[in-house]
Amino acid sequence: MRSLDIAKGHGTRNDFVLFVDRDGLISLTDAEVAHLCDRRAGIGADGILRAVWASQVREWDGDPELWFMDYRNADGSIAEMCGNGLRVFLRYLDEEGLIDSTTEVPIATRAGLRVGRFNSDGTISVTMGAVQRGAAVDINLAGRSWPAQSADVGNPHAVVVLDSAAELADLDLTEQPTWSPAGAFPRGVNVEFVVVEAPDALRLRVHERGVGETESCGTGVVAAAATLAPNRRCQVTVPGGVLQVDTTGSQAILTGPAVVAGRGSFALS
Amino acid sequence: MRSLDIAKGHGTRNDFVLFVDRDGLISLTDAEVAHLCDRRAGIGADGILRAVWASQVREWDGDPELWFMDYRNADGSIAEMCGNGLRVFLRYLDEEGLIDSTTEVPIATRAGLRVGRFNSDGTISVTMGAVQRGAAVDINLAGRSWPAQSADVGNPHAVVVLDSAAELADLDLTEQPTWSPAGAFPRGVNVEFVVVEAPDALRLRVHERGVGETESCGTGVVAAAATLAPNRRCQVTVPGGVLQVDTTGSQAILTGPAVVAGRGSFALS
Repeated sequence: MRSLDIAKGHGTRNDFVLFVDRDGLISLTDAEVAHLCDRRAGIGADGILRAVWASQVREWDGDPELWFMDYRNADGSIAEMCGNGLRVFLRYLDEEGLIDSTTEVPIATRAGLRVGRFNSDGTISVTMGAVQRGAAVDINLAGRSWPAQSADVGNPHAVVVLDSAAELADLDLTEQPTWSPAGAFPRGVNVEFVVVEAPDALRLRVHERGVGETESCGTGVVAAAATLAPNRRCQVTVPGGVLQVDTTGSQAILTGPAVVAGRGSFALS
Repeated sequence: MRSLDIAKGHGTRNDFVLFVDRDGLISLTDAEVAHLCDRRAGIGADGILRAVWASQVREWDGDPELWFMDYRNADGSIAEMCGNGLRVFLRYLDEEGLIDSTTEVPIATRAGLRVGRFNSDGTISVTMGAVQRGAAVDINLAGRSWPAQSADVGNPHAVVVLDSAAELADLDLTEQPTWSPAGAFPRGVNVEFVVVEAPDALRLRVHERGVGETESCGTGVVAAAATLAPNRRCQVTVPGGVLQVDTTGSQAILTGPAVVAGRGSFALS
């Protein structure tokens, strides 16, 4: 039986299986990824992060002397970027002794170059690219409708403002929100429901396209902060924990915890 | 940070974290058990199985030269027995070289002595103790009501017969079933909804007390077989896989798959 040496980690309860494959020799099938991510038969995770040397990645045409974050969803499909995943990826590379965490660490991703920084308080900050503000739309859920601001953070988001934490807590996100105009998001959309608790403090819940409600979503947190707390540092509370977003520069910077919970060898089927 | 060398395994998708503590030196707090069983921050499991030498277990007054299965639920609370867990426990002990799997293997549990047998087809059989048939009751769910047979397999069960696999598939088990008379199950009850597909073939879904719907429940499968297929060998299909029950002897025997998926070292907090 094929097995793989892996680690498991999480950032605000968005969790990942990680492994190092410096020379790009390990090719997992979709079924093998799905098995590893199976929370009962495998180890369980939202996705898999493979650390491969960028020079081995055909689609990467930037600096070849970097680590590339090869991120795949739990069903084996390719994913571009994940802010929580990138922090956990950096923590893992550091614990494996593969990077120098006393300096800024550039990481190659399918969404382009990202830069990580290890903070003295134990958190990790990552650049999240530019946020593109989109059109105003309407989001519908369970017979209600709200105006929303669309935003692109490499993936599509719609940000809805609610009046109170109680209203946020009461939302039933087991249903898939819909939107109008219907053509606004041809590839679907992630929807953030946000309460502005202070000019620099947001609280949100997110419905991720194709997944359902999740406890945290790095790009969703950035979309909400860029929309509702532009040009400042703000704190964003999600069900899985607390994150910070700095929207003062040309790129949003996401800061938060990242933990490697354990290491082991797991069967691939 | 405290960490622990563990394995993870499952039987019909009922999953467990396992570890060996021969001399009874490792005492996990409820919080540590809950952390290990946390599917995002930890490794994730339905419960924890500690392999400890029976002579180290104060409450065990049988043969001291056995392995004792110390089973705790995901919240850290003590549990008596679990048919799926016992098979995975046996598989793990065998892979660790701690038992002789060519003979019957007695195991000490809080429910008393159990015996395991490794079959040539790769499955494992375990004795499940005697089944006590109880009173007739009614089970209510979502405005409907069915007559049910209660049974005790070390824990309380109520077995409901449905007419068709379609009816079984359509049940909404996100709700907690209730029962009448109300005093029938002072400590709650596990409810099996069963279709008799043939005299020796059952299909069932289970609602476990305090948990909700699960993909498999060893004692529930035995309760259903003892009630609806007494004095024979029968196959029981659950959402997590296929099990066999032999009700021809004084004790029911449960047979099914058991897999150790991987091993590693995980943080306890």
